[in-house]
Order: sequence, then structure tokens, then C-alpha cells
Amino acid sequence: MTATGRIEICEVGPRDGLQNEERALAPEVRAELCNRLAAAGLPRIEAVSFVNPKRVPQMAGAEEVMAGIERRDGLTVAGLVLNERGYDRAIAAGVDELHYAFPVSDTFCERNQGTTIEGAMEIGTRLVERAREDDRHISITLSAAFGCPFEGRVDPARVIGLAERVRALGVDEIVLADTIGVGVPSQVRELVAGVAALGAAVGCHFHNTRNTGYANAIAAVEAGVALLDASCGGTGGCPFAPRATGNIATEDLVYLLHGMGFETGVDLAALLEVSAWLAETLGKELPGQTYKAGTFAPVAA
Amino acid sequence: MTATGRIEICEVGPRDGLQNEERALAPEVRAELCNRLAAAGLPRIEAVSFVNPKRVPQMAGAEEVMAGIERRDGLTVAGLVLNERGYDRAIAAGVDELHYAFPVSDTFCERNQGTTIEGAMEIGTRLVERAREDDRHISITLSAAFGCPFEGRVDPARVIGLAERVRALGVDEIVLADTIGVGVPSQVRELVAGVAALGAAVGCHFHNTRNTGYANAIAAVEAGVALLDASCGGTGGCPFAPRATGNIATEDLVYLLHGMGFETGVDLAALLEVSAWLAETLGKELPGQTYKAGTFAPVAA
Repeated sequence: MTATGRIEICEVGPRDGLQNEERALAPEVRAELCNRLAAAGLPRIEAVSFVNPKRVPQMAGAEEVMAGIERRDGLTVAGLVLNERGYDRAIAAGVDELHYAFPVSDTFCERNQGTTIEGAMEIGTRLVERAREDDRHISITLSAAFGCPFEGRVDPARVIGLAERVRALGVDEIVLADTIGVGVPSQVRELVAGVAALGAAVGCHFHNTRNTGYANAIAAVEAGVALLDASCGGTGGCPFAPRATGNIATEDLVYLLHGMGFETGVDLAALLEVSAWLAETLGKELPGQTYKAGTFAPVAA
Repeated sequence: MTATGRIEICEVGPRDGLQNEERALAPEVRAELCNRLAAAGLPRIEAVSFVNPKRVPQMAGAEEVMAGIERRDGLTVAGLVLNERGYDRAIAAGVDELHYAFPVSDTFCERNQGTTIEGAMEIGTRLVERAREDDRHISITLSAAFGCPFEGRVDPARVIGLAERVRALGVDEIVLADTIGVGVPSQVRELVAGVAALGAAVGCHFHNTRNTGYANAIAAVEAGVALLDASCGGTGGCPFAPRATGNIATEDLVYLLHGMGFETGVDLAALLEVSAWLAETLGKELPGQTYKAGTFAPVAA
């Protein structure tokens, strides 16, 4: 009954997590977070976002964060870019990998990025071309693929159609994101199967807004996904549900995966210490559970 | 990709949930909770525990709780009993269904119930005999079936062996409980398959102590379990992990199950109001997420 295989976790706490936290952390603290995560064995870290700091003050100083990250063998440092200006900054700052994302509904695209799906596809086309020229790995995340905060249910056929177009651009990876945390495992299996059938490398990005995130992550892995995003401590939130939590917590995902026999390369005990440190740094309890409960060690009788 | 079938949820918030909350609620408030849950469509409620109130003050006044519950068609009211004295009280108070539980390790049995597994089996034998005489439904929960706080990992063969003995007593249902929230889906499938192969009706009881509870619930349902325990708002806790949370939240489980096409008979919107009321009554935010995030309704663009 034991699974085998390696699941790669992309740690998105420094970006998607911290971007949605009330307390903004200084660039050197965010770099320290990345360094602690890398030391705990996280192989891939979305460290920064090259967006306008006036719009997202939590992400200000991306270049300083990048400069503070100690590069080590086996560590991939990624940055989120939403346009060519961001791309230029990311390359100049020395990211290994580019992440681009857009929502699969026009309304959300307009609200989030000031463009339509077609406009977002054009930007994506150009970014993939440039990444190919610069010989960088690039992934595209289809946001709100499991439901849109404005348009409601999303037709899986629309997501799969967009994934086909994105794949045809020559992107290295397609990530299906449940941005507002509404998906369920049956939906995950359907979308993952549909996108995998295109011949694309598929990853998934889950939020735990309604406590479905970990069940969805297991469904994704068992449907063949080998890449999952997660956020140390489960930092972050949801602008559409202010009292709700954000990404699935990396340490809780690792606990689950290791318990089922998957390998991640992560040192869980070390990661729990990073989560505890981050909770202290943010001055709040984080939604991750295992850093509070501890891994499974019997107490003295 | 849509599942079909009905999953029966046994609401254990009034018992397992409130038993582990710091603030004790008066019997009339606990009866009101049961009445609100029944009105939201919960078909089965573990309302009370017939234990010594000096040991568990949160459960004092079980008879008053029972007296305050409005009986309605289709509602089963259950009580936990750990010995014959509790059984006598339960019958006198008019419970429809008896729940008995014991941990699958001697150390935990001794700590929790002052007896060994063999002693607990003897009590169980007598309780099932009496329930048969009184024509009452009786279930037995094997606690800590996925891991023991004192002895560590639990051999699935031991759990299945005990389940076989419990089944042979003529019990109506066997519930496998992850009392300390350490199990993972692969383990759930193995244990459920092993116990179902005995010809027993199997239910599961999960805690979300390490954020594995909902993934385990889905694994259980997909392995054929038709009964799941859950607690409104995710009330409760874990004596062995004081900073951790307790049972999986009924409303989040219902959100997941309905999203996957299962029926529960529960009115989710009504249940979310019960969770919000309970959070206010306990004076704290509860771990359940959907009562904070809301069900999936698009916001105005």
C-alpha cells in the first residue's frame, strides 16, 4: 500500500504566502526565510515577485531578496513575473526560473492584471519566447482553474483548452491553481487527467480556504502530478475570503507525503523549525498544524 | 467523475468536540447545540458522555442534555458509555444508540480507562450483550487505531485482529479512530479494507491534528466507508498536542462530500450558521474553514 516516487515541492511561502500577510517583512528577512527553507531541503523556492511595489508592498525589494539568497547545488530560485518589465528585472536579478500566471476568466484577469485572457496569452507567448532565448525554465500557472471568485464555476473544458494553447507555446510546466480554495478531489482528477493527456508536465497549487487543500494534493499526486506548490506554515490568505487561510502548509504536505511513502528531499524536523521561526517573525500563529502538534513521537508513559 | 451514494455523518461535536474545549457549556446550551444540528439535517448526533463529571466536567449533566433534546423523525441520539454504570444511565436517559470505545494499546487503555485491552474487551462483551437484550444499536470505536500517543506506531494486524473479536461480539458497527491525528490515506485504505473484509460495517473518526483529516476522510469514503464522525466547527483538541486542533469540521467535510457528488442530507448553509453560533458561544474562532470563507458564491465584479 506504500507509494513510491519523488514529489517535488515548490515552496511559495516567500512569495504567495508573504504577499498576503498583513505584516510586510524586510527583504533581508525574506532572504533569510529562503535560506532557511533551502537548508531544510526545499529544492525549489518561488522567492520573489517582480511586480510594482506600490501595488504589492509586501513584495518590495525583490532584487535585495535575490541578492541575499545563498545559492547552493540543487536549489532552484524562481520569481513571478506578470509582464516583460518584470521579466527584465528577474533576469537581471539572476532568477533560475520564471513563473508567469493568469486567471482563466476574463473578469478575474481584468481585475488582477488589467487585461483579458487573450491579452494575458499574448504576454505569455512573449515571455516564453524570451525564456527560450535566455535558456531559462518557465512555467505558466492557470489561476482560478477550479473556480473563479467573479464568474463562479469554471468549465474544465475551458481550462484544458487554455492549457493546450499554453503547452503549444513551449512552456516547461503548466500549474493548475485553486486560487480561492474551492476545488474538490474529483475535480482535481478530472483536470489533471485532461491536462496530462496533452503531454504537458502538470503541477498543482492548492489553497486550504475550505479545508480541501490536502485532500486535493493527495488526489493530484495519485493522478500523476509530480510538482506541488506549498507555503511554509501555510502563510497567506485569500483576498476574497478575508477570515480564511491561504496555501497548504509545506510541512503538513511533507508529513502526508512521507507518511505515504513518497520522497520529497525535505528534512521535516528542520522545516518545522523554519515554520516556528516564521510564526514568531510574523507575530502570529500560522495555519500549519504539524509545527504545533509535532511529528508523531510517543510521549513517556 | 462524480461519486454517488450517501455518507452518514455522525456529529460528535457535542461530545468529543466540547469535551476537549476549555470553556464548559451548560447542559441546556449543549442541548440547544444538538437541536440546531438536528435542524440542519444531521441524522445522528453523539450528544453526551455518561462518564464521571468529576473526571470530565465538560460532560456533566448528560441527563439534562438528553432531556433538552427535541426528538424528531430520522434523528438518532447517541451517548458514549465506558462501563455498565454509564450504560444504565444511558438507557435511563433514553439514548437511541450506544457508543463504546477503547484504545488498541494497553498503555493508552490503562491511562484512559484504567484497564487493559482484555479488560476493555470484557466490558465491551457485556455492553453488547445488554444492548442486544435492550434492542439498542451499539457501536464500538477502536481508538488510536492509526497510532498511539504512548506506544507509537500500531501494527494494522493488531487492529484488524481486535476488530475481528469485536465483530464476533455482534456489534452493529466498528469505528476506526485516529484519536491523535497521525494517520495518512494509504494507512486508512489498508485498515478499512482489512476490517471491511471481516464483513463488519466500518466507520471512521478522524482528527485534523496534522492537517491529514480531510484527505483521510476522502480515502475512507473511497475505500467504501459510509459513516464518518465529524464535529461542528472542528471543535475539540488533543490532550497530547495542546496547541493542535481536534476533529475534522462537519461543515468542511460536507462541503467536500457534496462537491464530489455524495449526499449527506445536511443543509450546508444552515450548518454554517450553527458553526458561527457555536464559535460565538465558545468565544473563540474555530478550526473549521467554510464557516469563515463561505461556500462558493461569486462576488460582484
